[in-house]
Amino acid sequence: MLFFTQCFGAVLDLIHLRFQHYKAKRVFSAAGQLVCVVNPTHSLKYAPTRCAAAQTSTEQGILPPCHHHEAVHDPQLVPCTCPLFSCPWEGHLEVVVSHLRQTHRINILQGAEIVFLATDMHLPAPTDWIIMHSCLGHQFLLVLRKQEKYEGHPQFFATMMLIGTPTQANNFTYRLELNRNQRRLKWEATPRSILECVDSVISDGDCLVLNTSLAQLFSDNGSLAIGIAITTSKVHSSEAEI
Amino acid sequence: MLFFTQCFGAVLDLIHLRFQHYKAKRVFSAAGQLVCVVNPTHSLKYAPTRCAAAQTSTEQGILPPCHHHEAVHDPQLVPCTCPLFSCPWEGHLEVVVSHLRQTHRINILQGAEIVFLATDMHLPAPTDWIIMHSCLGHQFLLVLRKQEKYEGHPQFFATMMLIGTPTQANNFTYRLELNRNQRRLKWEATPRSILECVDSVISDGDCLVLNTSLAQLFSDNGSLAIGIAITTSKVHSSEAEI
Repeated sequence: MLFFTQCFGAVLDLIHLRFQHYKAKRVFSAAGQLVCVVNPTHSLKYAPTRCAAAQTSTEQGILPPCHHHEAVHDPQLVPCTCPLFSCPWEGHLEVVVSHLRQTHRINILQGAEIVFLATDMHLPAPTDWIIMHSCLGHQFLLVLRKQEKYEGHPQFFATMMLIGTPTQANNFTYRLELNRNQRRLKWEATPRSILECVDSVISDGDCLVLNTSLAQLFSDNGSLAIGIAITTSKVHSSEAEI
Repeated sequence: MLFFTQCFGAVLDLIHLRFQHYKAKRVFSAAGQLVCVVNPTHSLKYAPTRCAAAQTSTEQGILPPCHHHEAVHDPQLVPCTCPLFSCPWEGHLEVVVSHLRQTHRINILQGAEIVFLATDMHLPAPTDWIIMHSCLGHQFLLVLRKQEKYEGHPQFFATMMLIGTPTQANNFTYRLELNRNQRRLKWEATPRSILECVDSVISDGDCLVLNTSLAQLFSDNGSLAIGIAITTSKVHSSEAEI
């Protein structure tokens, strides 16, 4: 009996995902764009002082990893950068992607232009929607976060981080685009390196910021479709990698 | 002596304006774009319930003028739509522009693409920056407002209103663009009619919204340059005017 109930649940989930996918295709009518349905994840962390040290150092021009522990002994090791969990893992930059996929089950998508369809926007803050994006020979982490910067007033913050060094990040430009109901909102910027803390990027407000009312205007039945494109920055593309 | 002091003050103002103009030209490098320096104006009103009636009616699909008085006897008359003052004036749509110019001293600029340079962004809320824009045979009102929707957290709201009917407004698309420091933010939408209240557009959040931190990122020495472009909407251009 339990088996049949679970099967029925799985079929319902599939129908729901198919419906979300259809909705996103309708919103972003450009043919050939990959639509990825991203379900929300409630964070298990949000220690307020998690990134305080990292943030202070960034302001002083130094770029430390976002410390989960008191100290990272090997400077070549970076802690887990998944913004969802206080994860004790640390490792080299090259293995961050496989850690995020295997331990945190974050999906990875291929393609220069994709549509990120975040579901259940009504869920209370804090909530994250996360996906990895493989493009132009690099991997990027897209984070959409619903957070109450001011108590009782949740906002949505979206940013893209390169799973690489700040120098590598300077070679790219990412674009996030919302398009619905004869309204269009575009944010273009250089991605930050994952060595900078996503929490500090969001607290600085250096990302796409949406009030709840604006998010509702762009949402369709509780889902928000964000078009993502990554290009090589012309200004920096000739710069040598350190 | 007083005369010389005033002359000296005027010369200083001119130098300041020239400097602001130069800054905007540097930010928006596109040649030939008209840069307009807009100084802030502190509002003399902000009665909280001013647009309550208009807003309720808009939610119900009716589009009333924004009443300053209990009733407008002639339905062809509209009240003064200047968002700065509680002005008792009312008149036909055709004479709103001359009223705004003559009584409220709001400048009018010509050209499909202009740069709106708002100075003194640090001034406390509520503050408005307003200009009229003549383009494609119509006049538009651009309003940038600094307002505390949530106490202690000022935000910037920018919108464009057509000095015309909602049906006429549907024929256009306006674009506001911020561009600085390898970051770009674009908002595109159909302008609202000036018969809808600017206060309700802002309280609905159906406009370009900037947190203080984002506004600072786009500001240069306390001034915010907004590129403005107006085009005819392709979708609606064939629709007949009622």
